[in-house]
Amino acid sequence: MIVEVVAVGTELLLGQIVNTNASYLGERMAELGLDAHYQVVVGDNHRRMVDTIRTAMGRADVVIITGGLGPTQDDITREAICAATGRDMLFSEDHAVVLRAFWDRLGREFPESNLCQAEYPEGSEQLHNPRGTAPGLFLDHEGTLIFAVPGVPAELYQMLEDHVVPRLRRGAGSDEVLVSRVLRTWGYGESAVADLLDDLYHASVNPSMAFLASAGEVKVRLSAKARSEARARSMIEPVERSVRERLGASVFATDDETLEQIILGELMDRGWTIGTAESVTSGMLAARLSLLPGSSRVFRGSMVAYAADLKRSLLGVPQDVIDANGVVSAETAIAMADGAAAVMGVDVVTALTGVAGPDPLEHPPGTIFVAVRTPEASRARGLRMPGDRERIRAYTTTTALQLTRLAVMGEWWNSER
Amino acid sequence: MIVEVVAVGTELLLGQIVNTNASYLGERMAELGLDAHYQVVVGDNHRRMVDTIRTAMGRADVVIITGGLGPTQDDITREAICAATGRDMLFSEDHAVVLRAFWDRLGREFPESNLCQAEYPEGSEQLHNPRGTAPGLFLDHEGTLIFAVPGVPAELYQMLEDHVVPRLRRGAGSDEVLVSRVLRTWGYGESAVADLLDDLYHASVNPSMAFLASAGEVKVRLSAKARSEARARSMIEPVERSVRERLGASVFATDDETLEQIILGELMDRGWTIGTAESVTSGMLAARLSLLPGSSRVFRGSMVAYAADLKRSLLGVPQDVIDANGVVSAETAIAMADGAAAVMGVDVVTALTGVAGPDPLEHPPGTIFVAVRTPEASRARGLRMPGDRERIRAYTTTTALQLTRLAVMGEWWNSER
Repeated sequence: MIVEVVAVGTELLLGQIVNTNASYLGERMAELGLDAHYQVVVGDNHRRMVDTIRTAMGRADVVIITGGLGPTQDDITREAICAATGRDMLFSEDHAVVLRAFWDRLGREFPESNLCQAEYPEGSEQLHNPRGTAPGLFLDHEGTLIFAVPGVPAELYQMLEDHVVPRLRRGAGSDEVLVSRVLRTWGYGESAVADLLDDLYHASVNPSMAFLASAGEVKVRLSAKARSEARARSMIEPVERSVRERLGASVFATDDETLEQIILGELMDRGWTIGTAESVTSGMLAARLSLLPGSSRVFRGSMVAYAADLKRSLLGVPQDVIDANGVVSAETAIAMADGAAAVMGVDVVTALTGVAGPDPLEHPPGTIFVAVRTPEASRARGLRMPGDRERIRAYTTTTALQLTRLAVMGEWWNSER
Repeated sequence: MIVEVVAVGTELLLGQIVNTNASYLGERMAELGLDAHYQVVVGDNHRRMVDTIRTAMGRADVVIITGGLGPTQDDITREAICAATGRDMLFSEDHAVVLRAFWDRLGREFPESNLCQAEYPEGSEQLHNPRGTAPGLFLDHEGTLIFAVPGVPAELYQMLEDHVVPRLRRGAGSDEVLVSRVLRTWGYGESAVADLLDDLYHASVNPSMAFLASAGEVKVRLSAKARSEARARSMIEPVERSVRERLGASVFATDDETLEQIILGELMDRGWTIGTAESVTSGMLAARLSLLPGSSRVFRGSMVAYAADLKRSLLGVPQDVIDANGVVSAETAIAMADGAAAVMGVDVVTALTGVAGPDPLEHPPGTIFVAVRTPEASRARGLRMPGDRERIRAYTTTTALQLTRLAVMGEWWNSER
């Protein structure tokens, strides 16, 4: 099946917001095994929206329209779908009740103009939006599946999982469901993952296996087609086990799990707290460790010693360690971790020192030493990061989080990198 | 003039990278006063690329193609432009020499397959790429201006300013140049800016005035058309002066200047160093202040006291201040700033304490107190940030940077917010 994502909004054309919905949908559709040939952004203009939707219907089996479902006069996705498919607009009394109740709960008067959100093209189904007032739409138009979902990312993500993905799994009129399992790996490059799984890859027809490389990680996607979701899952299960055996601790998460979730979970399981001692990343590691709600249960704080003398005064790195090894060294990173553990009273510290550039400092830009100290051991590792200052900082942050995950799990970086 | 951006790359369709080039180009083209009706993403497929370029040529005056100029077999933008315009492919001996010299400098053998980067459609001009090996292309095809630029953002940005923008300013065959000046403002909403400039807006024909709201700021764009760039600039100058008089210190940057650049410059002018004391943003402020090369000249470090007890032990916030006012209070923010200034030995500290949520802590989520301490004064300000945890953290970071800028300049937050 071929999918086309149509994003609606003049603010996208003007660059006022970045179209992260398109990349999110692109990745999610690829995980489901759908192909994409085009993505289009179109402004809030009736004629151009109708043209765009018609073109997409002509070349894709599934059209997902994001945005334009709000209550204002420039939200015209509903009208454009009617015009593109030659359908009348109907009105849902049920949804009008939902809308009035929503505004009642806010204690505010219902703006009658918002009644347009109760309208829907004839033959379409309104999709419940638990996070907002605009319902989504689903329409099977002569075999082409058309979805309209809100442009607000949080509303889109939820509606996608609640309504779009299940319908796509059931497929266009087929009795078969498509189930995918995505194993997120870190530490091997795409070709190394492919080499390690080479025989499994060639033996896998159903489930099929695919590799997707994204920023700093490689995803292994297993997709099975079967008469039931349970059957599809049981077909994936033995292949997944073999993949995990080959790749070991480099598999860090499954499906939508994030690295931050995994680290928080591993720390909570052990009852350990964490803090960071940073220079080159200057708080970026701390920001990631505090990203999730509830992170205050394990994350306590961070010392950013950007100036060299603060490594001594804040973190107590001994001058003779710096004199003997330099500020950018494994020994200094370990001493930073020890100092931060004492000052902040934490069980685990991730510390790093390095050169973001553009100027060298003892070493060329991209030279990084990461140390992790846990109640069980301490270890440092030297890294060479590619790219410019911004990329070095971003890659260093993710790499340090991955090394932290492995250290906390007792997997002391034996895997090749 | 209407512009259409065509982004080439299967990795975009798969969501492996976010199409930030499209939003960057969208914003830059809007600043130049060009209209955009569509943006398209197409995979590395010859037939579909040709279709997409032809469609764009049919509905836009300017087509900017990003990506597909590399040396591998899936980089086929050059071929697609030939096919879409019915032109032959020529070979530039001059650029072949440039390519060989580039590899020589790397001390590596020249891969003959890379000679494809010396090819160009008949009638097109190769655009110099100072940051990579792939030249861009410019072709005036029957009055439609076609540009091809690399997909690597740093290469694209440079080529855009060096080659695309000057050609667009000269326009399609017109003798007039279009010059824009963008004033970035913070502190007023879009409608407040529009109200303050209402009479100027209605009086402005050439230069014209437009308002663009993007994340947390409002841009005022002045665009003048004239026979020469100098003449256009002199037409903008008095209007810009009037706008600045009305908006005062809320104008924080001009054209491509960033908030980080401005703050660094203001600090360097005064010979002041800076550090941060953070809780809710957990290092995000420190990461921004160290974003730019050379920031180590003014930025010294940060203390992230995420756990409440670290505000006492690391930053020396007196227990009686916390007991009397709470952890989330103006008084605690001021005490954090005082403590951090002493511990880190810095002239300026931006400190903040607040509730990112989802759970309340003394106050509802989104309650933030920011304090800035300079050698001249200290002041705190309470804020209410909208949205979820992630948005609260992002907005708080930018707001704290803006308050820091004003405080350093001695503009102690008198402007309405």
